[in-house]
Amino acid sequence: MSKKKVAVIGAGPSGLAQLRAFQSAKQKGEDIPDVVCFEKQSDWGGLWNYTWRTGVDAAGEPCHGSMYRYLWSNGPKEGLEFADYTFDEHFGREIASYPPRAVLFDYIEGRVKKAGVRDWIRFNNVVRDVRYDDATGKFTVTARDTKADKETVEDYDHVIVATGHFSTPNVPHYPGFETFNGRILHAHDFRDAREFTDKDILILGTSYSAEDIGSQCWKYGCKSVTVAHRTAPMGYDWPDNWKEVPALVKVEGRTAHFKDGTTKDVDAIILCTGYKHHFPFLPDDLRLKTANRLAAADLYKGVVWNHNPKMFYLGMQDQWFTFNMFDAQAWWVRDCIMGKIALPDQATMEADPKAREAAEDALEDDYGCIKYQGDYVQELIDETDYPSFDVDAACQAFYEWKKHKKKNIMEFRNHGYTSPMTGKKAPPHHTPWKDAMDDSLESYLQT
Amino acid sequence: MSKKKVAVIGAGPSGLAQLRAFQSAKQKGEDIPDVVCFEKQSDWGGLWNYTWRTGVDAAGEPCHGSMYRYLWSNGPKEGLEFADYTFDEHFGREIASYPPRAVLFDYIEGRVKKAGVRDWIRFNNVVRDVRYDDATGKFTVTARDTKADKETVEDYDHVIVATGHFSTPNVPHYPGFETFNGRILHAHDFRDAREFTDKDILILGTSYSAEDIGSQCWKYGCKSVTVAHRTAPMGYDWPDNWKEVPALVKVEGRTAHFKDGTTKDVDAIILCTGYKHHFPFLPDDLRLKTANRLAAADLYKGVVWNHNPKMFYLGMQDQWFTFNMFDAQAWWVRDCIMGKIALPDQATMEADPKAREAAEDALEDDYGCIKYQGDYVQELIDETDYPSFDVDAACQAFYEWKKHKKKNIMEFRNHGYTSPMTGKKAPPHHTPWKDAMDDSLESYLQT
Repeated sequence: MSKKKVAVIGAGPSGLAQLRAFQSAKQKGEDIPDVVCFEKQSDWGGLWNYTWRTGVDAAGEPCHGSMYRYLWSNGPKEGLEFADYTFDEHFGREIASYPPRAVLFDYIEGRVKKAGVRDWIRFNNVVRDVRYDDATGKFTVTARDTKADKETVEDYDHVIVATGHFSTPNVPHYPGFETFNGRILHAHDFRDAREFTDKDILILGTSYSAEDIGSQCWKYGCKSVTVAHRTAPMGYDWPDNWKEVPALVKVEGRTAHFKDGTTKDVDAIILCTGYKHHFPFLPDDLRLKTANRLAAADLYKGVVWNHNPKMFYLGMQDQWFTFNMFDAQAWWVRDCIMGKIALPDQATMEADPKAREAAEDALEDDYGCIKYQGDYVQELIDETDYPSFDVDAACQAFYEWKKHKKKNIMEFRNHGYTSPMTGKKAPPHHTPWKDAMDDSLESYLQT
Repeated sequence: MSKKKVAVIGAGPSGLAQLRAFQSAKQKGEDIPDVVCFEKQSDWGGLWNYTWRTGVDAAGEPCHGSMYRYLWSNGPKEGLEFADYTFDEHFGREIASYPPRAVLFDYIEGRVKKAGVRDWIRFNNVVRDVRYDDATGKFTVTARDTKADKETVEDYDHVIVATGHFSTPNVPHYPGFETFNGRILHAHDFRDAREFTDKDILILGTSYSAEDIGSQCWKYGCKSVTVAHRTAPMGYDWPDNWKEVPALVKVEGRTAHFKDGTTKDVDAIILCTGYKHHFPFLPDDLRLKTANRLAAADLYKGVVWNHNPKMFYLGMQDQWFTFNMFDAQAWWVRDCIMGKIALPDQATMEADPKAREAAEDALEDDYGCIKYQGDYVQELIDETDYPSFDVDAACQAFYEWKKHKKKNIMEFRNHGYTSPMTGKKAPPHHTPWKDAMDDSLESYLQT
């Protein structure tokens, strides 16, 4: 029997986890399938591969990247550490807990360089279409190599979608946007906070993008930050030139009008209004439709596409856990494809996400959510050979992080946490976040 | 025999010309094919349908629009007038020669409203894929209705690509772009010149976008305009705060360095570096690859896809003539599909674009280019029942326009020209372009 063929779509954190999962089995002498990874960017790393481009990329495809300059991890690295490749192993010593982008990119890359999986990836390859053929039991994957300007059409036994869900912005319209005399952009297109130095900015939204992009603009000297919320303010103890206001109603010229009748003249409007699960390359029968929640719809164990269990999705959940959750999923998917994990009957598979949804709905607060997702990670790694790690310690890092944010939103990144992998505590960073203007790897590693 | 089915992709100026061409035949009692027009936007008008959005649209698809606020036609309306629907007929009187966007949109819409073709169009429908099947002799068109979130797969006898070629930006990289501390945007994402009031802007490029976006920013009070050219300056008599400089070499922080060793600190860089012919929905065998030139490659008569003559492309040429050239093409394509025009043998078809290329290469200046494209329009309309018009008079309007620009680039829009359709001369606009800040239809029509 010829080898199975597996297509992985995307070489970001989740796709790379999948390559590492297969390579890990190969390293142990197992007979793994042929794996081909399609990546539309010219390098790996997904969102962590920074681009100055916005809109469409050099090939005319929508820009994948939502990354901006000066971004530091907004959660402790102790929550996302790889169990098979610690920060300690990569950097040769303990580093501080909230690494900037370049440091995290270096870490992600370090593991897959060591694994030697780069030649499994077809860079500059956009997947255009995936179809499942009942007659052959295979998927036909159509992709375009944008550099060679050539199309490929190939059959695969399995398809793993690892394209992320923070690339396609959700962009609402408000009256007056069409005649606003400044810049309107979504967080997806935000690149350099210094563009907004001395500017009055309006942010719509109250989640991570709002909190972090507002903080960046504040750090790099914007004149004021106004954040409009539809349901509730974020409620942190913001700096003096930062105000939370009720929902935006309309814009006239440069004047924003809010629900409470107040107004504010602004230079730019930054829409931190979230992202969509968007799979333009998938037909109706293979396409995930889910809310951004911890229990994603229609996925058994959070990864198996119930309507065709030869297909998998990685990292489609809302996320507290990230890199090591993708690992847990990737190892599990690998074992499922390699026949080491058997799928139950259809009814059981369909009941699984429903039970997870019910359990999620019963959660009372963020602490419950963190524990819930930690338990999910534990459940998956218990069923594979992914190195077991102290998931509770990772949860603990998240709990402390939340408390540190509450205490001082502009200082939480000055804290250090204990690694769930090494048990060692991270040193504090050499410079408080608000004063550290240089986000380079060299600068960060001076601790 | 059942009716032929024709798919038109795009409901902008060229796609709408195609619908009007078929409707015109129907009106005369002819038996026309079933025509379905796929339009990814929610309204017709193509680029003339202004959107405040940049990057991706509400459905997560790349924004089609490159239109900006305050845009006035950069060529005289006498060069683009429809022969079957004059400005005089639409507005009930003569209007001035350089209408703003809203006025031209109204004019385009007026004709197709009168024709009653709106229900031939499937709005919010993105064509994902077109394949030709040798066995059936038909095209399979796969499209997604982004509003209904449903895919359709249908067969067509003919496909007419009318998606334009000013939607996918060509975006070059220069050293330092990744660390520039201001905004970098392509002309495609330019929306409101007032965003750049009091700013120093750098423009790369020397074609229409550079000239017009620079002029807009000047008109709406930017601090300075610096335009870098790779080959030659535009050479107009620019205002005092406008400078043409040699090619950009690199950017450091906010400082742009040019080839002659000079530098300029700038707040924004606007890339007026052109567009790509981009057809992500077409496989290799159906996909046009051409330079942006008057004689497009591989198209017999500038419209028939030589590698599969059941397929057509409209408006893929570089353009002096626009709306009425699309009409000439659309009428010709209609007659070809309806069997009124017979295609010659393959060798003749292939020789045609080559002969056109050779003739284009022999042209000496812009005046020659205008005449060349005028002759092409004349050639096509001579072979159909499109109302004949005084193409020479249209060329004359272009010649005068060029002279007026040369004389004073900030005043050329104050002139009026003679309609090739009615023979009447346009009145001057009530306010010089540089002082007319309101670009609304109501304001413009006060003349």
